Amino acid sequence: MGTGPIAVTLLDRYRAVRSLTEALVYGLSDADATVQSMEDTSPTKWHLAHVTWFWETFILRDNVPGYDPFNNQYAFLFNSYYEAEGPRHARPKRGLITRPSLEWVIRYRHFVDEHIEAAFESLPPEALVLFELGLNHEQQHQELLLTDIKHLFAQNPLKPELWPGDSDRYTSSETPMEWVRGREGVVQIGHDGQGFAFDCEGPRHDVVLTPHALASRPVTNAEWIEFIADGGYQKPEYWLSDGWAWVQQESIIAPLYWEEVRPGRWWSFQLNGMHPLDAHAPVTHISLYEADAYACWAGCRLPTEAEWESAAQDMAPDNPPNGGGLLSSDGMVRPYDAPYDTAALKQMFGSVWEWTGSAYRPYPGFRAAPGAVGEYNGKFMSGQFVLRGGSCATPRGHMRSTYRNFFYPHQRWQFTGLRLARDC
Amino acid sequence: MGTGPIAVTLLDRYRAVRSLTEALVYGLSDADATVQSMEDTSPTKWHLAHVTWFWETFILRDNVPGYDPFNNQYAFLFNSYYEAEGPRHARPKRGLITRPSLEWVIRYRHFVDEHIEAAFESLPPEALVLFELGLNHEQQHQELLLTDIKHLFAQNPLKPELWPGDSDRYTSSETPMEWVRGREGVVQIGHDGQGFAFDCEGPRHDVVLTPHALASRPVTNAEWIEFIADGGYQKPEYWLSDGWAWVQQESIIAPLYWEEVRPGRWWSFQLNGMHPLDAHAPVTHISLYEADAYACWAGCRLPTEAEWESAAQDMAPDNPPNGGGLLSSDGMVRPYDAPYDTAALKQMFGSVWEWTGSAYRPYPGFRAAPGAVGEYNGKFMSGQFVLRGGSCATPRGHMRSTYRNFFYPHQRWQFTGLRLARDC
Amino acid sequence: MGTGPIAVTLLDRYRAVRSLTEALVYGLSDADATVQSMEDTSPTKWHLAHVTWFWETFILRDNVPGYDPFNNQYAFLFNSYYEAEGPRHARPKRGLITRPSLEWVIRYRHFVDEHIEAAFESLPPEALVLFELGLNHEQQHQELLLTDIKHLFAQNPLKPELWPGDSDRYTSSETPMEWVRGREGVVQIGHDGQGFAFDCEGPRHDVVLTPHALASRPVTNAEWIEFIADGGYQKPEYWLSDGWAWVQQESIIAPLYWEEVRPGRWWSFQLNGMHPLDAHAPVTHISLYEADAYACWAGCRLPTEAEWESAAQDMAPDNPPNGGGLLSSDGMVRPYDAPYDTAALKQMFGSVWEWTGSAYRPYPGFRAAPGAVGEYNGKFMSGQFVLRGGSCATPRGHMRSTYRNFFYPHQRWQFTGLRLARDC
Amino acid sequence: MGTGPIAVTLLDRYRAVRSLTEALVYGLSDADATVQSMEDTSPTKWHLAHVTWFWETFILRDNVPGYDPFNNQYAFLFNSYYEAEGPRHARPKRGLITRPSLEWVIRYRHFVDEHIEAAFESLPPEALVLFELGLNHEQQHQELLLTDIKHLFAQNPLKPELWPGDSDRYTSSETPMEWVRGREGVVQIGHDGQGFAFDCEGPRHDVVLTPHALASRPVTNAEWIEFIADGGYQKPEYWLSDGWAWVQQESIIAPLYWEEVRPGRWWSFQLNGMHPLDAHAPVTHISLYEADAYACWAGCRLPTEAEWESAAQDMAPDNPPNGGGLLSSDGMVRPYDAPYDTAALKQMFGSVWEWTGSAYRPYPGFRAAPGAVGEYNGKFMSGQFVLRGGSCATPRGHMRSTYRNFFYPHQRWQFTGLRLARDC
Repeated sequence: MGTGPIAVTLLDRYRAVRSLTEALVYGLSDADATVQSMEDTSPTKWHLAHVTWFWETFILRDNVPGYDPFNNQYAFLFNSYYEAEGPRHARPKRGLITRPSLEWVIRYRHFVDEHIEAAFESLPPEALVLFELGLNHEQQHQELLLTDIKHLFAQNPLKPELWPGDSDRYTSSETPMEWVRGREGVVQIGHDGQGFAFDCEGPRHDVVLTPHALASRPVTNAEWIEFIADGGYQKPEYWLSDGWAWVQQESIIAPLYWEEVRPGRWWSFQLNGMHPLDAHAPVTHISLYEADAYACWAGCRLPTEAEWESAAQDMAPDNPPNGGGLLSSDGMVRPYDAPYDTAALKQMFGSVWEWTGSAYRPYPGFRAAPGAVGEYNGKFMSGQFVLRGGSCATPRGHMRSTYRNFFYPHQRWQFTGLRLARDC
Repeated sequence: MGTGPIAVTLLDRYRAVRSLTEALVYGLSDADATVQSMEDTSPTKWHLAHVTWFWETFILRDNVPGYDPFNNQYAFLFNSYYEAEGPRHARPKRGLITRPSLEWVIRYRHFVDEHIEAAFESLPPEALVLFELGLNHEQQHQELLLTDIKHLFAQNPLKPELWPGDSDRYTSSETPMEWVRGREGVVQIGHDGQGFAFDCEGPRHDVVLTPHALASRPVTNAEWIEFIADGGYQKPEYWLSDGWAWVQQESIIAPLYWEEVRPGRWWSFQLNGMHPLDAHAPVTHISLYEADAYACWAGCRLPTEAEWESAAQDMAPDNPPNGGGLLSSDGMVRPYDAPYDTAALKQMFGSVWEWTGSAYRPYPGFRAAPGAVGEYNGKFMSGQFVLRGGSCATPRGHMRSTYRNFFYPHQRWQFTGLRLARDC
Repeated sequence: MGTGPIAVTLLDRYRAVRSLTEALVYGLSDADATVQSMEDTSPTKWHLAHVTWFWETFILRDNVPGYDPFNNQYAFLFNSYYEAEGPRHARPKRGLITRPSLEWVIRYRHFVDEHIEAAFESLPPEALVLFELGLNHEQQHQELLLTDIKHLFAQNPLKPELWPGDSDRYTSSETPMEWVRGREGVVQIGHDGQGFAFDCEGPRHDVVLTPHALASRPVTNAEWIEFIADGGYQKPEYWLSDGWAWVQQESIIAPLYWEEVRPGRWWSFQLNGMHPLDAHAPVTHISLYEADAYACWAGCRLPTEAEWESAAQDMAPDNPPNGGGLLSSDGMVRPYDAPYDTAALKQMFGSVWEWTGSAYRPYPGFRAAPGAVGEYNGKFMSGQFVLRGGSCATPRGHMRSTYRNFFYPHQRWQFTGLRLARDC
Repeated sequence: MGTGPIAVTLLDRYRAVRSLTEALVYGLSDADATVQSMEDTSPTKWHLAHVTWFWETFILRDNVPGYDPFNNQYAFLFNSYYEAEGPRHARPKRGLITRPSLEWVIRYRHFVDEHIEAAFESLPPEALVLFELGLNHEQQHQELLLTDIKHLFAQNPLKPELWPGDSDRYTSSETPMEWVRGREGVVQIGHDGQGFAFDCEGPRHDVVLTPHALASRPVTNAEWIEFIADGGYQKPEYWLSDGWAWVQQESIIAPLYWEEVRPGRWWSFQLNGMHPLDAHAPVTHISLYEADAYACWAGCRLPTEAEWESAAQDMAPDNPPNGGGLLSSDGMVRPYDAPYDTAALKQMFGSVWEWTGSAYRPYPGFRAAPGAVGEYNGKFMSGQFVLRGGSCATPRGHMRSTYRNFFYPHQRWQFTGLRLARDC
């Protein structure tokens, strides 16, 4: 009966994760929760229901005899991309689903919660692997939910605030950037199978690192403004060819959500509305193209994911001295400056996802799991780049040094940033 | 002082129109009222606020000294297309405005209502012309509001019902189609300036009619099914060149909202959900391209707007024997069969807008009014076709024989239909 | 046997038309003749072959027993839009057909010419109607061929010259614009069936004209420059709504082929290369949207096609005092100034096609002919506007007062211009 | 003076490369050489002129005092993507340049050839590095020229033949596929700087290989037909997510240029026209998406570029026993079957470019060269995958084991194929 102490912990964690999700949407109206602001984002309501569908399908339907779904049409509405689970509502049309209402989706959540509670003790041991996956899956959607609602609110000329915030009263201070030498030669990276990890994080394997150094902290807003002032967005020599085409076609002149209120004076949209930029906080909402161009302009390069992971291996991601893991507290969701971080490599976790120069491809020996769950990661391994660390919107308990986040190089509505690297 | 009995009537009509608008949205959630289902449609909330902005701007702002707008940003959000009134929120992004909420928009309506009531007696006579325009403008948006919400609900796989309906219990009966000869030679059409009309309805002028006849009733669903069964959508010889390109590119095989549940058995989506087609009701939700192709298949043609108006000149649009004007009652909004209509030309008003073969162009002597209101009609006079009559969603009191409705030839989310014509 | 004197004339005209076509392409390379510069245009080679396919199909194949086509695949390659004639090569891909070569297409022409000569005496009388249509069809393509090659050459940064020209040595002089009052009341327009006309030009029918006047000459380049200088392209109040969207989306700031070499100093591309604008020549290469905006700016309107035709009824189009009909001579193909035109209404034929305010729709009683030839005109009767007159690129013998040319309102690669009208 | 024996060899090679380029276009008409069949391809004429512009710019202009360009506008027309060299003609419009003619472009080539011959002895040593680059650059365009003209001819319904060929008389025979074990642990890959290589091929560096095996030969047409027959193109489980979207959107059902003439019987378009597939020749004209899906279907994976290079390190690419290097002989340009290749790993060079599973990213320590030439490779390092080996269209002398070719994962108009790999 593998449902001993670990299983109890699992159920406690289930309750915590589920309840944090609902806490995050506190204050959202039915309309806020329904609208989809672009193809890349999803409505809040969809996030709330989709993670619930995941629990319902892979835990209840597959393991609880006689389980009767809350609504048979929800599988069609709330499956994201699992081809093996049958047809589904087209992604760009998620925002047209005004019914069920937010209230009804919450009822769906509670219905599934009750059945999970009732069934938990009787779940077969093999279901617990999926249970753990379900927890991590929901945590991923907690972050997406926040970045998606931020994107929606930013489209509204009224610039509504999701939360009241402290941006204005806070005075940030500068932390000088230093170079921190990394390990060299053959090192090991990748997850070793102890504890939970997504399939793409393993197997653990050898890689060779050449002499290099990493910046002691991410690039800041103040530094980014220098890049802009130096014509960074106008000079093709800094840009990847695809990036230059993107800059020109989309008329990109600054990170997402930035607005130049007076010449040289920038504000940005945050979850608590428009505020002046925090000069010494990490720059965020930049694409890989922008990160790469900045690094080129600075005479540096992006770190590889192996360099990053090797440097982060011994850190404890859940106790960042400043910022991060905020989703379990009640502060503002945005990156902060670094002065209280006493590590040599500051803000590796919990500030911004850091773009690496590594394309998202399988590790040696990677095999996707069989069945629908096997679609989780492997099929996305083309055209995307790896990001490492974890942002101010990543839930506590969800970060680790082997974590491989990934996005397309033009995407920037996540809390993305960069840390410079250089050869030695 | 022009504010005698007529003005009192105007205020009564104001109250009636405003209150019907709110009655129409009864039962809609904040989310329903927020989402935009395609570029051609607008959110319910936008309709509610836009018509209110029209009152606020052209009546209160321009005529009431010291009037302080409800919210200075609403002019940006809720101006539709009046270039002279300054910049405005991009049309395709109307669905991203989750705030203000539906509740708040209703407050905006009531705020303006109170100021209109207070200011009414003191309005200068010249404002009353705009007041009348405001009434008609809001009535137009009542119809759009219904067709737009219908379009949104139809996108939802759950096919929600806005209203409970009677479609299934009602048995329709066939009315044979007969040819009714029209007037010939020089006739007059166009509005003569007595009573309200939109600027594009005049001036009244002579036109020449050649010998012709009009069908005694619109084409029915049963007849349309024959067209489909005969391969109407597969044979280019019936179609305008642009229409054939549209059919192929959009994979059009039937009117909008039709679904073939079994071979040859069609249902359609209505404001009360999916129902079997009413065989003898007028076909609706067809484009001009489809109307023209059907007429060609039937060896006939579409009427010109002059033929239509000449035939309708003496009719009383507000008392259709069956169907129509329904927006002031509590029945279902859909076209019905014709048996109770005893006129020679049945269902000329209140069933479906009838596509004519006339392009929407100015009448001889037409001049747009100066100022923002001059943008009301004239600038849309290219690429569109005239529709005549009025549909089951047109408010009572809003139909007249000179009315010129207009849409692009591919558009079909309105209650559009056709009446055949032929040369004699 | 209807092949008496008229038929002899027909054959002479056949020889003249066919030989003019080949004269027009003198000096074009195989590459010039092959490339398609945009979807609206066709390669020279395609024009040469398509008109020949028309002769081969509707005269030889249908009337000459045992006729063996030059190449069975040519029907697929060179059918333009006749659905009844079977599938055909996609229009946007006409420019990919590098084989057959120009030389081979000329051989195809001569092959068909020889068979037409041999068969002519034996053609049945009913074929002569199509023969006449074939002549007019080829004349239409002569004009398209010139406007299409002009468009192609204009895309080339080297701005090649098709012909040497006289633009620079010619000094144009101003002709004052006067108003010429038109006929009023019931007048007749449309072709009466005497001599050749396209099906859409009839039937002849009554229309009512309201009091109006036409400008004595088209709008000139010098006048257009005033419109530009007055911000005409920046002010939405002059524009149709669709036109304003077009101006903004396409960044339109001047007629097609214009280039501002120094502030306020404009050159334009012609068939003999880049030259300074001829100040007093009619403006050309403008869209309906631009024509309408100019008229609005000038406080006037466009003429209706009935007004235009009524005024032109008694003119002899083939003897314009200055310019026009040039395709049978050896001068430059461009509109000239008006001083030698002594008519009250100058340059009605042979300078520029004049946009009218009339949508291209069927006349009362119009019926398309049965069979493939019936696709000639009727199916294009949506979304387009009528142009009247004839341009400097219209062949002598191809202009008449009833001629209805038509294009979409955004198109402007033809020699299009405008003549103002106003109500009286 | 560095122009001793090596320099003599360089000039001989210059003559050989330049003359092969012209031999390849023998038989093309001016029209064939002018048209661009899609955005990814370029016209033959453009290739001929662009490589010449490269010589003219980086050798003559930069090293020969007083050199006067053949035509000052050619730099605008024929620069490909070197931002540092100034503005240039838009890539998608290369096919609109009907002038200069093919004949004139050949004159341009000879003009530059004469100046190179005259200047060669006096070139400074540092120019010889660029000279070597110029040779390799022109060889790259020789291959592109062939694949581009193939693409153009394939669009023509007449399916013209560039060359007469031997496809039908040749009987291919099957070579069984075997697994060949690769090296393990730390190995070195990358160019060591001895002899010419593109900048992206270095620096030489250590990598770690895990236990694996490579297939003894590429996947064949016969094997690919099994994949099709098994529903490979219909089952999402084999496909990368981006690949599945591409398959559906583009309606992909087979490799490029394949046509199913009867059920299960496939022909393909080659440079000598349409022919039945050679069953045992390597499959070609497949995208990375297709290669990856096939590997997944076969229970295998793609090799990494390090695995491939490590296995190829000791091979002599210029003497493939069968096929390859054909561009210096007079045979057909297409991949052949493998029976005469006696190596354990057959057809590593000269048959098809083999897709690897490696994204095209910089090697550790890579730095782009300064100046325009630095744009050669580095800026393309996002979104593309590495291909290794060399195809039947790669010129003799241009293949080596360190060569990193790269294309986007959906592109397949090159001679692309795949070799399976698996973990051991």
